[in-house]
Amino acid sequence: MPEPALSARGDAVGLDRLFRPRAVAVIGASHRAGSVGGAVLHNLLRGGFQGPVYPVNRHAPFVQSVRAYPDLASLPEVPDLAVIVVPAPEVPSLLREGARLGVPAVCVISAGFGETPAGRDLETEITTIARGAAMRLLGPNCLGLQNPDPTVRLDATFATTFAPDGHVAFATQSGALGLAALDYAQDLGIGFSLFASLGNKADVSGNDVLEQVARDERTRLVLLYLESLGNGRRFREIAVRLGRHKPIALVKSGRSKAGARAAGSHTGALAGPDSAISALCRQTGVLRADTLEELFDVAMVLANQPLPTGRRVAIVTNAGGPGILAADALEGAGLEVPRLDPATERSLRAVLREAASVQNPVDVLADAGARSFGEALRLVLADPGIDAALAVFVPPITTQAQEVAAAILEVAGGAQKPILSCFMGTHGVPESLRSLHAGRVPSFRFPEGAARALALVTRHAEWRRTEAVVPAATPAAPERAQAALRSARRRLGAEGGWLSGEEATEFCAAFGMALAPAMTVAPDPDAAAAAAEAIGFPVVLKALRGDLLHKSQAGGVELGLANGAAVRAAVSRLAHLGPSGLLVQRQLTGGEEWLVGAVRDPDLGPLVTVGAGGTRTEIWKDVEQRLAPLSDADLDALVGLPRFARTLEGSSGRPAGDRAALRDFVRRLAYAADALSELEEIESNPLLVFPEGLGAAAVDVRIRIGRSAAEPEAHASRRL
Amino acid sequence: MPEPALSARGDAVGLDRLFRPRAVAVIGASHRAGSVGGAVLHNLLRGGFQGPVYPVNRHAPFVQSVRAYPDLASLPEVPDLAVIVVPAPEVPSLLREGARLGVPAVCVISAGFGETPAGRDLETEITTIARGAAMRLLGPNCLGLQNPDPTVRLDATFATTFAPDGHVAFATQSGALGLAALDYAQDLGIGFSLFASLGNKADVSGNDVLEQVARDERTRLVLLYLESLGNGRRFREIAVRLGRHKPIALVKSGRSKAGARAAGSHTGALAGPDSAISALCRQTGVLRADTLEELFDVAMVLANQPLPTGRRVAIVTNAGGPGILAADALEGAGLEVPRLDPATERSLRAVLREAASVQNPVDVLADAGARSFGEALRLVLADPGIDAALAVFVPPITTQAQEVAAAILEVAGGAQKPILSCFMGTHGVPESLRSLHAGRVPSFRFPEGAARALALVTRHAEWRRTEAVVPAATPAAPERAQAALRSARRRLGAEGGWLSGEEATEFCAAFGMALAPAMTVAPDPDAAAAAAEAIGFPVVLKALRGDLLHKSQAGGVELGLANGAAVRAAVSRLAHLGPSGLLVQRQLTGGEEWLVGAVRDPDLGPLVTVGAGGTRTEIWKDVEQRLAPLSDADLDALVGLPRFARTLEGSSGRPAGDRAALRDFVRRLAYAADALSELEEIESNPLLVFPEGLGAAAVDVRIRIGRSAAEPEAHASRRL
Repeated sequence: MPEPALSARGDAVGLDRLFRPRAVAVIGASHRAGSVGGAVLHNLLRGGFQGPVYPVNRHAPFVQSVRAYPDLASLPEVPDLAVIVVPAPEVPSLLREGARLGVPAVCVISAGFGETPAGRDLETEITTIARGAAMRLLGPNCLGLQNPDPTVRLDATFATTFAPDGHVAFATQSGALGLAALDYAQDLGIGFSLFASLGNKADVSGNDVLEQVARDERTRLVLLYLESLGNGRRFREIAVRLGRHKPIALVKSGRSKAGARAAGSHTGALAGPDSAISALCRQTGVLRADTLEELFDVAMVLANQPLPTGRRVAIVTNAGGPGILAADALEGAGLEVPRLDPATERSLRAVLREAASVQNPVDVLADAGARSFGEALRLVLADPGIDAALAVFVPPITTQAQEVAAAILEVAGGAQKPILSCFMGTHGVPESLRSLHAGRVPSFRFPEGAARALALVTRHAEWRRTEAVVPAATPAAPERAQAALRSARRRLGAEGGWLSGEEATEFCAAFGMALAPAMTVAPDPDAAAAAAEAIGFPVVLKALRGDLLHKSQAGGVELGLANGAAVRAAVSRLAHLGPSGLLVQRQLTGGEEWLVGAVRDPDLGPLVTVGAGGTRTEIWKDVEQRLAPLSDADLDALVGLPRFARTLEGSSGRPAGDRAALRDFVRRLAYAADALSELEEIESNPLLVFPEGLGAAAVDVRIRIGRSAAEPEAHASRRL
Repeated sequence: MPEPALSARGDAVGLDRLFRPRAVAVIGASHRAGSVGGAVLHNLLRGGFQGPVYPVNRHAPFVQSVRAYPDLASLPEVPDLAVIVVPAPEVPSLLREGARLGVPAVCVISAGFGETPAGRDLETEITTIARGAAMRLLGPNCLGLQNPDPTVRLDATFATTFAPDGHVAFATQSGALGLAALDYAQDLGIGFSLFASLGNKADVSGNDVLEQVARDERTRLVLLYLESLGNGRRFREIAVRLGRHKPIALVKSGRSKAGARAAGSHTGALAGPDSAISALCRQTGVLRADTLEELFDVAMVLANQPLPTGRRVAIVTNAGGPGILAADALEGAGLEVPRLDPATERSLRAVLREAASVQNPVDVLADAGARSFGEALRLVLADPGIDAALAVFVPPITTQAQEVAAAILEVAGGAQKPILSCFMGTHGVPESLRSLHAGRVPSFRFPEGAARALALVTRHAEWRRTEAVVPAATPAAPERAQAALRSARRRLGAEGGWLSGEEATEFCAAFGMALAPAMTVAPDPDAAAAAAEAIGFPVVLKALRGDLLHKSQAGGVELGLANGAAVRAAVSRLAHLGPSGLLVQRQLTGGEEWLVGAVRDPDLGPLVTVGAGGTRTEIWKDVEQRLAPLSDADLDALVGLPRFARTLEGSSGRPAGDRAALRDFVRRLAYAADALSELEEIESNPLLVFPEGLGAAAVDVRIRIGRSAAEPEAHASRRL
């Protein structure tokens, strides 16, 4: 089911009824403890929902001591939310009844829909009913939802844990992960503003939750566990806007089918299952966590501490070894552990014992008291060259963990910079950890977890300081380019395929992409020689024939032709291939070989790839990737971040490369890939980038168009 | 203090007395709770040491209700172990008394030695005393040691935790980490056979502990936390031998000074602070953990489960999301999650519900009972294409975690392949986790930890299946090579420095390293032309002058000289540099540019580096590294594992490279680097590797000798 366009969105009322209902019906409410219908009703009642809960049960006059009703129509009022736990085949008729009564929101917990082949039609049916009635539908095949806001107290799940009230919104595509997350968050003392299990995402998507969160005053950050991102462009637009105020952290799992796709180009081969998501996160400031553990580590920091304004971290410890471990971990995560200001070192010297180390990491020594520890922490935080502090404490025999925790809390109370703590091991210090969590200083068992979380948060803070924008919609492609594609489509048919050399050249020229000087001529010695004369020697001759893709392997390329005689001889050597024409191209030398390409991700759009090209492309796999449309910052990253970009800088005896020409080529190629949705792959390899001022030129551009939009692939069940 | 040679080692008796003493004296035993001297005595008594404990205290007639003695000489017997907790300045005289009485082992807990500048002389003094009396010394500046063997029950530490009895030996250079580790291991239910805090390693080193472990029947695996490895060659010899039977897992922290050293070659620049340790671990099968957490995760698996015989892992789960998460994590860690055998899939289908997924990951569905879960686990383990299983369980409302844990344990009881488990989140399942730990099935909170640990264990198992050997000692260098170095030393003096081109050529020729054909002639046009004629055109001319290192930047290189006239002209162009001679070298083309080099690590010896060379060396940083001396497996890895090795394979239109010639060159260079200890750096970049059968040729070799051995650097306090 395609997601409706943005303009048709914004059904804020329906979502608000879903998450903040005034009355809830449970259809399929049951007596049986252990049944899902029994658990949901039990949770709603036990959770203290701030409104009436109506059990709906065709047979029982009351359920769990609460008066029950035979159907929705019999209820004393129309509920805002109907939670459905009956078998899948009964769901459509219930939804129709709800739609007729004007129920604004439903949550279908029942399974047996799109997650199995047999249930796909049923899922299409319920989605159609809900959309037709502007009734928001969460699920099906989900765990339910929770809103711990004291004015709502909604626990419409069959989980055993009702999240404590807090500022974190959590949406998960896997109900099982949701169960684990509820338990884990409780262990860590993290409170939720919202919990939604998205299930099959028939209607309500992760993007909808983000929209809801944007309106919700109580939410300060969002955690997502997703297996698919849905509409990537909408995600990007919401994330860039929302992320300015409320950080979004994401665990994305599930190997995409893209990885299995046979690669038709280097660009395709370099687009792994994860590349597009990684690019999207870099472009939108989304904190990409690798594991659920890391997701909640990040949440602890974001929920409780200010964002750092830089990468420079000071470590205060009471033991040398853990201090080194922490420094290794921070630097390994891309942060810095710089020397402190000499004035800070002097101040530390004045309060610490002589044997203490006042260089970063600051080691106050094992027998230092809580007061020294706290004082050292205060001093390093006051250092203008420090952006964050990590307190690493090993509870030795002579100091009390509890007192150190109190000292850390006192310093944190007045600090404008983030403080993280690590109490190595935890046995024996649970009390102090509890006090730290209560006091909003995140505490880790080992320094590595703290380092990873702080690094993610720091990168997010850096993104916030950039001017991240989603570029305006790409303008329509020039008519000349559209004509080239139409011509190719006529030749290739509905299945699509690779453009011929002439078609590709015509297409690129329409977008103003720099191509190596070339002319296409008839397979005739005189015509070829004349063309070579016009273009300038030396030239390359390439045999053109519709079915000849890998020309050089087929012996269809003649290199280094320095004069007319050589060109004529080459034409006769190529004759046996029966070419339809010849491409006479200026043979260029002295440029660096780059790869510039784009491959279309079915959900996220064209993934633009820039990096080292030529014959060694696959060996080095040195590329940077961003999703089109590209902002200026994206362009800078693409041409600046590959390691190969060092060749643009020049060195002794080697001039700088023409960065502007490369950037211009990338911009045009991304525009082309984004403007024409039937374009599946486009790649220039090599693109020769010459010394500064001398431009760039694509020697070869390969372009593939996909299946015609008129005959879509048979995958109606694709999830949003 | 240099470590004694291997032959002088093997003081097994002293180490045995240290770890299994029959009587212990505590010098500095104190009444005061909270003092170190008080805590050590308390721990020895409370721990139930199976022998007499003698407090030694100059003033008190008894301490903690135990009769005390004024000095060692007054004790009723000579103790096997004296634990010393008095201030540092008093330690030497106590050690002298112990030596006089014949005390075989001491543990110096006191700080104030080599860890501070003021204490360095004191540390040298106590080491000299101990070595002179063949008395083994643990520490100083350490936490002490524990041996939980019921026949010993030694807790000679001031820690609050006495490790439970078990099969894991743990040695740590940081006492603070040791404290954290004792607590953490207790939480995980891991028992120790030995715990040693090495402190400053004045005498007893990590290598000594490994030797002791080799003799200790009770130890099944060794965990090390080290900041320096000490004698790398001895470590390598012990580790290769011990690792065949008892795995060694290591966390190495601390950024080495090597990283700060100004790099004189690409090889030097590519040898980061960690490179030599990483190479050593790969060569010795040591499991390199990144964090203390990972170290103990690995220990849980090694201590309780058989080694896997391959990388293929089956996942059994009761929820789709966590199954995908687990598959992602396993593949991300380098393991495989293959499809199951069709017969296995059929068997699974017969015992599971229709909606269950019988492909790997096997999803038994949320409402499956413990019996189905166990049966599925048994079936995947029986699959001949599966080497290990990961059970991932999310405690839902309808199944009991306790029963599933019991089912897993039952399957594990009869299994010959490793089983790991993950109970997502832990809230609500601590009982089942306890039963799993007790039943020796490692349990993780999240699948990622399980995946990382299993991957490390699998790599160790693979190493065990290789024929890892430590090559015999490198034979002495040929006299001709030694003469070349002597000549360079005369020119460079005690400080050392770079060899001249002639010296380097002479040196390489002595080792039979393939060099580009070249002759050195006087700076005379006729001589140069004659040499070029003899070598074959085209040639390169290089101006030789002792102080001219970067010839090409100085304009001292003339390329592409195709005939005698060109050579003569080039000689006159070079005249203004006043060369002492000219190198006439055949100009070679058509080879792939490799880098082959070695740089000496002060502890671990020559680190041999092989990979992509030429002008892009620093961009790609694509090298493999191994420590000399090299085994055949090491040579295979060096020429086979860099990504650049794909250029050796050949492809359409490109011949395979001469792998044998590259391998031969690496072997000779490693021999040279290992045979001559004054050689600090040697690098050929580029080494041209030609198509198969055509050999390889070094175009340029740079060699640096270090400071003369007669005048060692002033760092007497270097730790072993």
